[in-house]
Amino acid sequence: MIRKPIPVKEAVQHVINSCTEVNSEMVKIDNAYGRILKEPIVAKHDVPPFNRSAFDGYAIRAEDSEGASENSSISFQVIGEIGAGHVGERALEEKEAYRIMTGAILPPHADAIVMLEETEKTENGFTLSRSFAVDENISFQGEDAKEGEILIESGSLIHPGTVALLATFGYAKVKVAKLPVVSIISTGTELLDVEDELEPGKIRNSNGPMLKAQLDRMRIPYHSFGMMEDDLDACTELVEKALSQSDIVITTGGVSVGDYDYLPEIYKRIGAKVLFDKVMMRPGSVTTVAVLGDKLLFGLSGNPSACFTGFELFTRPALLTMMGCTSPYVPRMKATLGEDFTKANPFTRFVRAIWEMRSDGLFVVPAGFNKSNAVSSIGRGNCIIVLPSGSERYKVGEEVDVLLLGQELGVATWDL
Amino acid sequence: MIRKPIPVKEAVQHVINSCTEVNSEMVKIDNAYGRILKEPIVAKHDVPPFNRSAFDGYAIRAEDSEGASENSSISFQVIGEIGAGHVGERALEEKEAYRIMTGAILPPHADAIVMLEETEKTENGFTLSRSFAVDENISFQGEDAKEGEILIESGSLIHPGTVALLATFGYAKVKVAKLPVVSIISTGTELLDVEDELEPGKIRNSNGPMLKAQLDRMRIPYHSFGMMEDDLDACTELVEKALSQSDIVITTGGVSVGDYDYLPEIYKRIGAKVLFDKVMMRPGSVTTVAVLGDKLLFGLSGNPSACFTGFELFTRPALLTMMGCTSPYVPRMKATLGEDFTKANPFTRFVRAIWEMRSDGLFVVPAGFNKSNAVSSIGRGNCIIVLPSGSERYKVGEEVDVLLLGQELGVATWDL
Repeated sequence: MIRKPIPVKEAVQHVINSCTEVNSEMVKIDNAYGRILKEPIVAKHDVPPFNRSAFDGYAIRAEDSEGASENSSISFQVIGEIGAGHVGERALEEKEAYRIMTGAILPPHADAIVMLEETEKTENGFTLSRSFAVDENISFQGEDAKEGEILIESGSLIHPGTVALLATFGYAKVKVAKLPVVSIISTGTELLDVEDELEPGKIRNSNGPMLKAQLDRMRIPYHSFGMMEDDLDACTELVEKALSQSDIVITTGGVSVGDYDYLPEIYKRIGAKVLFDKVMMRPGSVTTVAVLGDKLLFGLSGNPSACFTGFELFTRPALLTMMGCTSPYVPRMKATLGEDFTKANPFTRFVRAIWEMRSDGLFVVPAGFNKSNAVSSIGRGNCIIVLPSGSERYKVGEEVDVLLLGQELGVATWDL
Repeated sequence: MIRKPIPVKEAVQHVINSCTEVNSEMVKIDNAYGRILKEPIVAKHDVPPFNRSAFDGYAIRAEDSEGASENSSISFQVIGEIGAGHVGERALEEKEAYRIMTGAILPPHADAIVMLEETEKTENGFTLSRSFAVDENISFQGEDAKEGEILIESGSLIHPGTVALLATFGYAKVKVAKLPVVSIISTGTELLDVEDELEPGKIRNSNGPMLKAQLDRMRIPYHSFGMMEDDLDACTELVEKALSQSDIVITTGGVSVGDYDYLPEIYKRIGAKVLFDKVMMRPGSVTTVAVLGDKLLFGLSGNPSACFTGFELFTRPALLTMMGCTSPYVPRMKATLGEDFTKANPFTRFVRAIWEMRSDGLFVVPAGFNKSNAVSSIGRGNCIIVLPSGSERYKVGEEVDVLLLGQELGVATWDL
């Protein structure tokens, strides 16, 4: 079987085009963090909902302060107090004032707020030594948001700031996308469980626990089917069982060209349509994605770095797109390469790396050993350097693309 | 009472210096994501643990391929097959080969791997048309990590890559910091619950739900004490109750100079030592932090933007430091200002903003209305612009500091 490699960008597009949106549900505001909005957040009223004092001080009629100066102060009589949440009923008359707290509604006829610090206390009021303009120190009704305004679009991730908006407008419950369910199957007779002692020729399964953490980071629920032996019939049955219980099935391993790499045959048996089985990227060139009805099957490489990258590039955006998220891609930035890097292969290279802010800008250095089966560099690093196909040698000081890992908000476009 | 404002950097330092570390506990690897390591991750064995094949192909003795060329190919006999996880017992003799899978252990005497694509199949073996060097296509024992090497330091946040390392070395359970418990109390008679209908002079409490989401983002458990009325005795009692149940108490509101701003008096009554009660920052200049024994009390401003910023600048690093995290601060980068911004106040200004990658670099623009009581700009934006004290006008094209929000990994130093 000859596999035809396709560019990363094309592969991402194939995956996104094959996503089917999941249903929505209502969740309480306290459980909304991290979910994807399935309705816009609309300002249900003006914010502020009324003209209010921006400071602790006194509410006055500005005209009464006219002519006040250091040499000729003006006296005001305090006729009451308006705490935040309270209302001053009586309208102000000449040279009258209310003591007023931050955020409290202005009493009738008041049109300026005098800060406490600018007053001199008297027996039943205070004096002013400067004049105040109409509207001084007032937060105006609707200056922050107007009733009916769409503040946050449907398809946005709910972060703590979004929650503040939900609370402001009384969204005790909010419509969000249901969480897709993922199944994880690790393949390979060489794999031991994390509890097992090492044996000759074997290694512990790190992809399974890593993928669980990648899903946990997204707060996506999963079923773990543990590990399957290299047996075609048993494998097919397990994949079918996983499919019946989830929206997405991730397998690790079994996608190369070895005699025990059963995934291509399994996809054929269950009737899944393979979107691609070779991508012009390293690590992870054998990454395979297939679709069956409204479900996606991700055949990620058994090599940990390749598996990790395949999840972040393909599976994560797919999960977010299924939830209707309009910014499903890992955000990208530019940084200066902090050390030379030689690329052994013409494919696009994804290098686990560490970015940091130095006095002269953003720098990025590879996180260490960078073969696709490397585990140690996965544990370090907070980003991935992307080196495009073509050029083979990258020098200190060159500007390179960097994908930010572990970032709450994604971006709407994938450019690499 | 005159408050003496201190620089942000000094305030952060006061908070961090007052943190007491919480205890540690063991958690299962599947529950370890997001926790702070309280032991280093040590390579318990070499990685790879044995010399292994980097590709699917044939294991040969390199010397047997000497002299092979297009015109003079050399034949090999295949004496067996080594799947990953299996072992080839018999040593290779002259012009013998094992069929071998990616990741499988090399059989005795083998010292090179021939990729499948470079062979021509024969009845009981294959032919080669080029010679292979010793060590070609082999992943060497220990090349990724050496036994005994410290791969990840104690005090690191466990992310998915860290989990891969834990799995590789058999950390079925790992020692992590216990999660500190936080209490949240919102103060202000003007506050309504999210379910309530608006009333004149009142607004819904957005700080409480927002803080819960900020804690939820960190996976920190909390008690919510709802809202307290502006009554000094009741307030004191509530703060004492909250303290008895948690490591940190966050109050919102009540820290200004208004007649109902009871926090200073409450701190005095319970014997808490105030670290500072005025910070040279906007919003949030009234942010107050106090310490009582090994517990911290955060008096955040009642204004949503100020409350949000106060949490990210002070409370979040404190929580992480209590867990022993060595990188507790929000990461910083530089970006180009996308629009003019005028600062009305000499204090350091924190402006909710949106950063994005454009073709000519990283740009950042304010997220909208930016008074400290603004709610709408909180819902937008993925970062905070930091404008230092001093200069008042910032022009399009100037480079500014930006704090990345919602980023999984923090940094070790706070520079602003």
